[in-house]
Amino acid sequence: MGSLPPPYQMDKDQQVYMPPPLDLSHHYSYTTKNRQASSVKKFYKYFQIPGIHNLAGGLPHVSYFPYDTLEATVALPQRFKPTPNIPVGPPEDDLVDVASLAQPASTRVKVPKESDTTNLIKKIDLLTALQYGTAEGYPPLRAFVRKFVREHLHPNVPYAGGPEVILSCGSTDGFSKAIEAFTNVWNKERDWIRDREGIVCEEFAYMNAIQTARPKGLNIVGITVDEQGMAVSGPGGLADVLDNWDFRKGRRPHLMYTVTIGQNPTGGTLSVERRKEIYALCQKYDIIIIEDDPYWNLQYPSAYALSKQYRGESTGVNLYNRNYNSHGKSSGYEFLDSLVPSYLSLDTDGRVVRLDTFSKTIAPGCRLGWITAQPAIIERLTRIAESSTQQPSGFVQAMVAEMIMGPQAAKETGDDGLQGEHGWKMDGWVRWLEGLRGGYERRMQDMCTALEEGKYIVQDSTDRDLFNSMGDLSDWEVVNKVKMFDFVWPMAGMFVWMKICIETHPLFSQLGGEKLCKALWIYLTRKPYLCLVAPGEMFAATQKSADIAYQYMRLCFAPMAASDVTEASEKTVEGFKAFWQIKDPKDIDDHEESLWDNL
Amino acid sequence: MGSLPPPYQMDKDQQVYMPPPLDLSHHYSYTTKNRQASSVKKFYKYFQIPGIHNLAGGLPHVSYFPYDTLEATVALPQRFKPTPNIPVGPPEDDLVDVASLAQPASTRVKVPKESDTTNLIKKIDLLTALQYGTAEGYPPLRAFVRKFVREHLHPNVPYAGGPEVILSCGSTDGFSKAIEAFTNVWNKERDWIRDREGIVCEEFAYMNAIQTARPKGLNIVGITVDEQGMAVSGPGGLADVLDNWDFRKGRRPHLMYTVTIGQNPTGGTLSVERRKEIYALCQKYDIIIIEDDPYWNLQYPSAYALSKQYRGESTGVNLYNRNYNSHGKSSGYEFLDSLVPSYLSLDTDGRVVRLDTFSKTIAPGCRLGWITAQPAIIERLTRIAESSTQQPSGFVQAMVAEMIMGPQAAKETGDDGLQGEHGWKMDGWVRWLEGLRGGYERRMQDMCTALEEGKYIVQDSTDRDLFNSMGDLSDWEVVNKVKMFDFVWPMAGMFVWMKICIETHPLFSQLGGEKLCKALWIYLTRKPYLCLVAPGEMFAATQKSADIAYQYMRLCFAPMAASDVTEASEKTVEGFKAFWQIKDPKDIDDHEESLWDNL
Repeated sequence: MGSLPPPYQMDKDQQVYMPPPLDLSHHYSYTTKNRQASSVKKFYKYFQIPGIHNLAGGLPHVSYFPYDTLEATVALPQRFKPTPNIPVGPPEDDLVDVASLAQPASTRVKVPKESDTTNLIKKIDLLTALQYGTAEGYPPLRAFVRKFVREHLHPNVPYAGGPEVILSCGSTDGFSKAIEAFTNVWNKERDWIRDREGIVCEEFAYMNAIQTARPKGLNIVGITVDEQGMAVSGPGGLADVLDNWDFRKGRRPHLMYTVTIGQNPTGGTLSVERRKEIYALCQKYDIIIIEDDPYWNLQYPSAYALSKQYRGESTGVNLYNRNYNSHGKSSGYEFLDSLVPSYLSLDTDGRVVRLDTFSKTIAPGCRLGWITAQPAIIERLTRIAESSTQQPSGFVQAMVAEMIMGPQAAKETGDDGLQGEHGWKMDGWVRWLEGLRGGYERRMQDMCTALEEGKYIVQDSTDRDLFNSMGDLSDWEVVNKVKMFDFVWPMAGMFVWMKICIETHPLFSQLGGEKLCKALWIYLTRKPYLCLVAPGEMFAATQKSADIAYQYMRLCFAPMAASDVTEASEKTVEGFKAFWQIKDPKDIDDHEESLWDNL
Repeated sequence: MGSLPPPYQMDKDQQVYMPPPLDLSHHYSYTTKNRQASSVKKFYKYFQIPGIHNLAGGLPHVSYFPYDTLEATVALPQRFKPTPNIPVGPPEDDLVDVASLAQPASTRVKVPKESDTTNLIKKIDLLTALQYGTAEGYPPLRAFVRKFVREHLHPNVPYAGGPEVILSCGSTDGFSKAIEAFTNVWNKERDWIRDREGIVCEEFAYMNAIQTARPKGLNIVGITVDEQGMAVSGPGGLADVLDNWDFRKGRRPHLMYTVTIGQNPTGGTLSVERRKEIYALCQKYDIIIIEDDPYWNLQYPSAYALSKQYRGESTGVNLYNRNYNSHGKSSGYEFLDSLVPSYLSLDTDGRVVRLDTFSKTIAPGCRLGWITAQPAIIERLTRIAESSTQQPSGFVQAMVAEMIMGPQAAKETGDDGLQGEHGWKMDGWVRWLEGLRGGYERRMQDMCTALEEGKYIVQDSTDRDLFNSMGDLSDWEVVNKVKMFDFVWPMAGMFVWMKICIETHPLFSQLGGEKLCKALWIYLTRKPYLCLVAPGEMFAATQKSADIAYQYMRLCFAPMAASDVTEASEKTVEGFKAFWQIKDPKDIDDHEESLWDNL
């Protein structure tokens, strides 16, 4: 076989020629187009002259850093037991959190003041980590992330050369930089409506992202959500909104913000089929996709099986076998192969900007993540980082690098207290991710089981008569059982999105759904239930969503101890049951609604 | 004495009523005015209900954080020997870096997984530091910084209630947020010139700041710099520029970016008198002052005395006794009292936004600093942080808090390896700052002594004749000595700003100054000199500055080992001397100038 000159490159495994990503620079904001590389960079090569006296850089000498070492006790990657990659039945006895049973397995990590190695992508020490660095990230950590991204997490990105990465200070920072890169502020007092830029997102969305975009005058356009996530067809679906765009509202959106796996708050996970439909629309209308994917490793094949077992027919889609293997080369890990892949795996154009974070895989306080996109976009994001955050803190970058890649030989000799000689490495990192999935999958099962078994209430005959009089029996599965709420078993993430069946409440016709739902939220926080859930209002991306948001609650199975998930869920169910037994409107304290309004 | 109602408050020490800061919200950008507090906050009070089951927050449980402890070996605050607070003569034998003489004194720091205390400003543990937090910063560290700022660093801020603080990811991040808060992008293809906003700064400035402002279309307006820093009077001084503003260039600038202590690159330090003049102009023209002050603790009283000793008359201003004590209450520390104070100490209006960083006091890799301003501005900056960086990394916040404030009692029992029982506390922190000043002051003395003693070259009689023929003897102090460069002994900071007296070079009339200066820069990087200095071009804020920048070089005495400062400085001098001995234009390799142009 011959070879084509760059930029066309042949993929080694697939034996196909892949075109380079598209030039999407017409999407850059005015500011982003204007940014120039730091003028300092052109002097960098001089720093490399052997024996050069550096009188140029304004860098404090390492001797003035008060830290002589950074150390930690850290988990071994085996701390949590994984769950199977294929759909399984209900939890068995052995699916318990090993951390609750035994002394947690741990090892020691030590970042020395100065490491012997001269290889910058292996050199993890305070000399380098605590000095000024490059905006792309600390070389050892960035090299690890880049390898993970290109070879394991997204081994099938379909453009020549593959994607690049830049480290971020977490996904909120990553989103902020993406918005900076791709949007111009629209000032309603100054600008024509025809110049207003827009961003499509799920109608219920992560509000921190919305609150980043809204003050810039962007038109936030909510798209209908179903059990998978963003809908394509139907009224309010993506095709409807884009095909019938009303230009009196501004430009047709050129950006999409989406959480496609374990969507916050609705818990949906997009199938590959749905992704293809959405991607095709984004190609048709030239839309940049900002994919925020904090829960990608928390995918639960058991949700489908358990849901089906309880309900006869699952409300969700079986996502098993919609994985990397189905459309390309293997990630190298059975666990990663089992997961629904990123939009990057479909991204022939290079229009996907993916946000990752260590917040859910290590800890939110890291303020550490990365952005993956075509190299030209990463270059612009690097210019933005140089003028804002620069690189993430060297403290967290060094500690994470050392935990995963370390230890490197230290200059110091003697007993350094290190108990473990090896970092997690790539295998350990993937094993850790798999263990976290195990932990969260057991939590999901605990919560959903309690909710599934508690969603109906048995009404007495008086209520029976009342409901008969309402002439609506659709929610009655058994004559004297009424459904208080419903939900989809989440295939991923940390959340159960609960729809309150408020129309089955005895006082619905008297008080209306909104008043009752708000009173219910307050009621749940009271003794003896003491349950705080997130009201749907918190996630309404648009006014249209806000109008129906009262019917929803988001329950999260992450923040409590693993052993408390069932109790917290059962307490919520108890609260619902007690609330459904209130028959006198006077017992729905007006006080409660006003409490809500004063929130 | 009676009391006035808020917002007028009586200062306890000064027994005066102070007015509140001005409402400066008309300076906010369109986006900044639009920002709203997170809707999640209104639910926070429910998190405080005793025994509440938290199903609301999307927070991973602490058991899933792989870090069980964070630890470090850190310096004791006494590691470096301070220098006297009053002007002194040349360095004496005992002014040596104690770190180079003995085993550095150190102690152990340990952040436990969970601390027993419930007091959030004393609770330093991984449970809190590695969880999501508030954008103002980690409560223990923010409380420490706030106390340091309000009681010790700026005890005399002249508005009621005093300033507030928010932690930042270093001063580049702080400046980026200030620009976001106070400027609207100006797009030359869209907007009227009359709407163009501007920012005044020193004509030679820290380019990272300029590169943050320039892509937004801001008019960067350079102000003439003298040995103190920004000039008020004279052509190109602040008064000239503002009084005679040419509105055909856009709006009169409403922002100032300034480094007032050890200015980068010129090394100047503004006297209190100069500050008062500049502040009065900023009041007259309603300008927000963004004061970037990374070198405030590196003030060198000996520079004045040494300069005077060498030169008969110092080129600088004696800044001693221009300190906090001269206009208000004491900082509580003799060291802090001796320093030239911030613009905040004059800020009756609340128009100063001060940027601080731990980059020079702990390490650049911290990516940690803080912003100080009137509370209303800090509130807006907090909204910006919520939608971008959130708080700085918990890793660095916890480690710095633990080093300074720790240790707190840990839940774990047994031998925890802690050798020291006490953190630095406020006294230790100030002592550490004073020790750093000592270290850098000795470096300044080493560099300036070598430069002072090497700035002349003895020319032979042939050269003597050549120079006589040029008819300009002004730079000749002794008949056969010619000055190659000049500089001001820096009263603060890390830099010596060297003016090349290129007109004294034998080939000046033949080749011109610019060609010679660029060739000199390349020449210095070569054997046997091997000196890399920062060319003036790197700091030219405007085209006007760029036109004269070739005459300048910035030398930094920070990046090398303390013991190498003299050698590096002497090598630079040797390079100059050799370069001044080149008499044949052919020996100024054309290659060298083209090398420069290709940089």
